[in-house]
Amino acid sequence: MEKKNKTISYVKKVEVAFSDIDALHIVWHGKYVKYFEDAREGFGKKYGFSYMDFYNHGFMTPLVDLQLSYKKMVEYGENLSVHITYVPVDAAKIIFTYKIFNETDDIVCIGKTVQVMTSVSKELIFVNPPFIQEWKKKWLTK
Amino acid sequence: MEKKNKTISYVKKVEVAFSDIDALHIVWHGKYVKYFEDAREGFGKKYGFSYMDFYNHGFMTPLVDLQLSYKKMVEYGENLSVHITYVPVDAAKIIFTYKIFNETDDIVCIGKTVQVMTSVSKELIFVNPPFIQEWKKKWLTK
Amino acid sequence: MEKKNKTISYVKKVEVAFSDIDALHIVWHGKYVKYFEDAREGFGKKYGFSYMDFYNHGFMTPLVDLQLSYKKMVEYGENLSVHITYVPVDAAKIIFTYKIFNETDDIVCIGKTVQVMTSVSKELIFVNPPFIQEWKKKWLTK
Amino acid sequence: MEKKNKTISYVKKVEVAFSDIDALHIVWHGKYVKYFEDAREGFGKKYGFSYMDFYNHGFMTPLVDLQLSYKKMVEYGENLSVHITYVPVDAAKIIFTYKIFNETDDIVCIGKTVQVMTSVSKELIFVNPPFIQEWKKKWLTK
Repeated sequence: MEKKNKTISYVKKVEVAFSDIDALHIVWHGKYVKYFEDAREGFGKKYGFSYMDFYNHGFMTPLVDLQLSYKKMVEYGENLSVHITYVPVDAAKIIFTYKIFNETDDIVCIGKTVQVMTSVSKELIFVNPPFIQEWKKKWLTK
Repeated sequence: MEKKNKTISYVKKVEVAFSDIDALHIVWHGKYVKYFEDAREGFGKKYGFSYMDFYNHGFMTPLVDLQLSYKKMVEYGENLSVHITYVPVDAAKIIFTYKIFNETDDIVCIGKTVQVMTSVSKELIFVNPPFIQEWKKKWLTK
Repeated sequence: MEKKNKTISYVKKVEVAFSDIDALHIVWHGKYVKYFEDAREGFGKKYGFSYMDFYNHGFMTPLVDLQLSYKKMVEYGENLSVHITYVPVDAAKIIFTYKIFNETDDIVCIGKTVQVMTSVSKELIFVNPPFIQEWKKKWLTK
Repeated sequence: MEKKNKTISYVKKVEVAFSDIDALHIVWHGKYVKYFEDAREGFGKKYGFSYMDFYNHGFMTPLVDLQLSYKKMVEYGENLSVHITYVPVDAAKIIFTYKIFNETDDIVCIGKTVQVMTSVSKELIFVNPPFIQEWKKKWLTK
């Protein structure tokens, strides 16, 4: 019997700031890492899945993998929508995918992050702690 | 008859600054993008392959792909060595791989960047311009 | 006969992001420079006084003076209001003052910026160009 | 009877990186805050006066005042020298002044920072703790 999950996601609006652009007059590629993080924060607030939610349960969630593909240059003054989607996995990992659109709905960047869980003393956790299992039941069950 | 290229690389020393670390007291994952860029700049200066060298020939080299894998958390005060290696390809692309080591020679991060070439008016270039072909002959031929 | 100007100002809302805080778990002091810039951008858009408005008239407006006084530490998750006010002067300078409030209306930071005007070739301008005089007439006259 | 202190200072070398420059092709004004911090770190290491030295004694040293005056635009590829000087005061404050020079010994930026001391629970300290008094005796007495 097939198990199906709900897809949960969030959209973060980003206004490209003057200090986001580099000498080529396009958004500096490193800034997208911050846009992804801002989207994760928005997702975390919406779904009770933020850094602080984890920290209060005794966990940290460091990134172990980060991928970005840049599809279109973005200039000063553009408004972007960062779409973040949670990718369910059984392992004790947190995976998100990202799609960033400009105002004319062109994809400008796609990406993916993988986070692991550690104790606050930075020991890796291999099994999802109970509060994550409850969180999954609450949000992902159809 | 097999063609073999020389491997050219560069090592950039990085001292982790207070403002590189985040609230978890480890280097913020986005900072590594800057460490990679600093290594590319050092490589560019050493081999005549910098942003400005390209720009002076009428080209820009935006990133289209960025991958990072974090292997070990890095703390304030650590000294890192960013090893950057040029990966020869026939296409009009610039590929680098990266390995970052701490002082005890643990790998803390590996990564890869792919850049394309455009004209200064941001039109994509599909064939390596002559100055790149000369650069390759000069530096990569065994 | 006394000349009186209208006071024009703008309020920029800022949500403190995870990457804004430092290892002491407070907003890194350098981030406020960005909050000020974001407020100037918002002001610029509202009143037709942005970097691009100047650039399109052939001018740049580099900062020559920046002052910040920190009154209260700010933590992750706080929401700030950056109040920016234009300070009229006769000289060819652009002066803003800033007050940043937290959600309980405590002042957390005050500051001031002074910008000069240059041509795009970076020559200092000593007399306000006509478009600035018109702008002042439009917005500051009571 | 006049008390005279020795002047202690440190010079931090900074290479302007591509990501330090903004769309106007000059160093973004906010980057100088980081250059100042890097100089404080270098000073701290040289004289046993770093964030960590304070932290290990139970103190934090947040900035309460920051002033910068920009004297000359700085471009990509320039090499800067950040001169930091400790300004002795009797109060429980830490004051530094800064002068940044380019390669032709022009002053490009001057500035000042004021830090206070707090306990790790962020309570303000009004009297210099003993380790500071010893530090002053060691380094400042002629």
